[in-house]
Amino acid sequence: MSNKRVYMDYASTTPLRGEVFEAMRPYFIKNFGNSGSVHAEGFQAKKSLDVARKSVALELQAHADEIIFTSGGTESNNLAIFGVAQALEKKGVPFSKMHFVTTAIEHSSVLECFKELESRGAEVDYVPVESNGIVSPQKIARVLRSETVLVSVQYANNEIGTIQPIRKVGLLIRDHNSKFPIPNSRHGKMFRTFFHADASQAPLYLDCMVERLGVDLMTLDGHKMHGPKGVGILYARRGTELLPILFGGGQERGVRSTTENVPLIVGFAKAFELASLHRKKESARLAKLRDYFYSNVLKNIRINSLIINGDMKERLPNNVNISLLGVDTEFAVLKLDAWGIAASTKSSCLGSEGASYVVKALGGEAARADSTLRFTFGLATTKKDVDYLLRCLRKII
Amino acid sequence: MSNKRVYMDYASTTPLRGEVFEAMRPYFIKNFGNSGSVHAEGFQAKKSLDVARKSVALELQAHADEIIFTSGGTESNNLAIFGVAQALEKKGVPFSKMHFVTTAIEHSSVLECFKELESRGAEVDYVPVESNGIVSPQKIARVLRSETVLVSVQYANNEIGTIQPIRKVGLLIRDHNSKFPIPNSRHGKMFRTFFHADASQAPLYLDCMVERLGVDLMTLDGHKMHGPKGVGILYARRGTELLPILFGGGQERGVRSTTENVPLIVGFAKAFELASLHRKKESARLAKLRDYFYSNVLKNIRINSLIINGDMKERLPNNVNISLLGVDTEFAVLKLDAWGIAASTKSSCLGSEGASYVVKALGGEAARADSTLRFTFGLATTKKDVDYLLRCLRKII
Repeated sequence: MSNKRVYMDYASTTPLRGEVFEAMRPYFIKNFGNSGSVHAEGFQAKKSLDVARKSVALELQAHADEIIFTSGGTESNNLAIFGVAQALEKKGVPFSKMHFVTTAIEHSSVLECFKELESRGAEVDYVPVESNGIVSPQKIARVLRSETVLVSVQYANNEIGTIQPIRKVGLLIRDHNSKFPIPNSRHGKMFRTFFHADASQAPLYLDCMVERLGVDLMTLDGHKMHGPKGVGILYARRGTELLPILFGGGQERGVRSTTENVPLIVGFAKAFELASLHRKKESARLAKLRDYFYSNVLKNIRINSLIINGDMKERLPNNVNISLLGVDTEFAVLKLDAWGIAASTKSSCLGSEGASYVVKALGGEAARADSTLRFTFGLATTKKDVDYLLRCLRKII
Repeated sequence: MSNKRVYMDYASTTPLRGEVFEAMRPYFIKNFGNSGSVHAEGFQAKKSLDVARKSVALELQAHADEIIFTSGGTESNNLAIFGVAQALEKKGVPFSKMHFVTTAIEHSSVLECFKELESRGAEVDYVPVESNGIVSPQKIARVLRSETVLVSVQYANNEIGTIQPIRKVGLLIRDHNSKFPIPNSRHGKMFRTFFHADASQAPLYLDCMVERLGVDLMTLDGHKMHGPKGVGILYARRGTELLPILFGGGQERGVRSTTENVPLIVGFAKAFELASLHRKKESARLAKLRDYFYSNVLKNIRINSLIINGDMKERLPNNVNISLLGVDTEFAVLKLDAWGIAASTKSSCLGSEGASYVVKALGGEAARADSTLRFTFGLATTKKDVDYLLRCLRKII
């Protein structure tokens, strides 16, 4: 078989685009200043930082002061969830009086935050998803309470690629907030409910404009969109009170202390700009490849041993996720790797063993979550690659 | 005057060494895999990560599993302080029963953590430094208690370059721990006292071997040693219980979730390796330049308007810090900048206004902390640059 690598794990991480690397390059050695310094090197760093911040804000149709640069998606999710919770705690509300809402299929960096909040006494509703991997906005509406501090829903799922109805959830949270006006009315609404969306998987394929989505907080991650690892943002709408999770020099409006990472931030801004630029065309191209895969894999594999995980329509154009009942897919991934194809069974943030909790949440037989295979296409993926993948899969089954 | 820039703010941030950039370069585009993935790209990332971790451990004479990669010095300091405090809290010890010790001249990313712990009910002793900027180990010993959870002392100060007697403090903490054996003896020692050193300013000039220093926790920061911004380590001795401050995929022994940043980590390891390699020679070269500056500045400036801040002997070889009484040094920094010299009044993590709390802690007249100037030399600094600086200073005064 071929010696060429066929990378089909873009949901795990992506290579830098050449333009992103070139945009970052001058900031490592030549323009290396600390944006907090009061001299030419510092001013220049500050200026580049400001330009990057404005560019990101523009793509989101947000204000520049609503962009907080972080070390990546995990930190952004942590800052959104703990930041809001701890700001309220500082005001005298104990964790035991707080209620949170999320879904059963969030990324581990969201779920683990909520587990930690539960261990501190908070109550969390993990709303189940439907069998197609989509959460019902009505089910979210039903669990909202006067004490609901934050609702966190992933824009697009990292394993099965399902796209959640963020806009609808945003509208119903706005509705919920208006029904219980603040300050403490006779309806007893204790505090405003904030809405967070982890959009880490979205920007290459989905529109991320915050007004349209109706989010108060939104996470983006550089290395999921051909930007560098180690940089992300948290969008935080004006008026969203956040307590820092890192204390220090008070950078990023005091919410995220640390010398601002100008090279990576410049890279992030460039990657996001390019993501927007290529979004429409690349989405269409990959959706075709994805659908080609699905229609062909269905032709070739006994239908009763194959399950497609996640909605076929409301789904990232680059995502393929199937269960192959009776197949050891952990072994299949190694075999595919030997044949040159980089794939995965589930999220790479979960180690290599155990079933997928995302697919488990879809219901159905137990074997389904044990036998998942995820292929996430991207920039370099061609029809030839998909044909090769189909040939290899046939061999495995 | 010259158009060439004379960068004398290496304590604020440093440019990458060319070798560091070259070491990182392949990991941005070609070898971009996620170290958590189960395929060739992932395995290769994992391998590079392991090699970097071992290399850092070797330089510290520590075990590889004692190295936690973080997003930089601020996060490492936060993780050390909150990690230890929260691990204890999880065991049922309220913050109000915890005691901490630090010095008055720590970096803001240490001091702000302790202020936050105070706001949660903990008690913190800020041990003053002597007029030379060095903390007396005896004064630390005197405030240690049975409930002391952590002592945090900076290895070398970022503003005045003073080197603290870490080894002596380490020995007396060991002594303190042995006097009050654990578990609860009749002496009532409640828990082991851990020792943390923020060594962010040290590695280019000082030996960082953890056994010799006697630290349990130690912070290093990439961009202070010609490595990349956005990466640091926390050394955490085996047996040091830490609770995470970022929750998620459980990377870095569960203490620091986030996709491991292989390019930056490889760069960090390379920078640290080179720091060790050049440490002796570069320290000697810069100490000469520093002393040349001091002896010349003393010749040229009325002695009663000039104060040298910080001990002259126990001091980083690249650090010059003076107060020029009656001179508006904030303006002087801008003037020097116009003449091509990048300098600072104090830490760049503190914004441009207000006096230096570090120099204030040295005592003496109030004007002293208001009129500081810091020059930190480095790789590119030559005797010609120092002569130029002296000429410019004479003009200003």
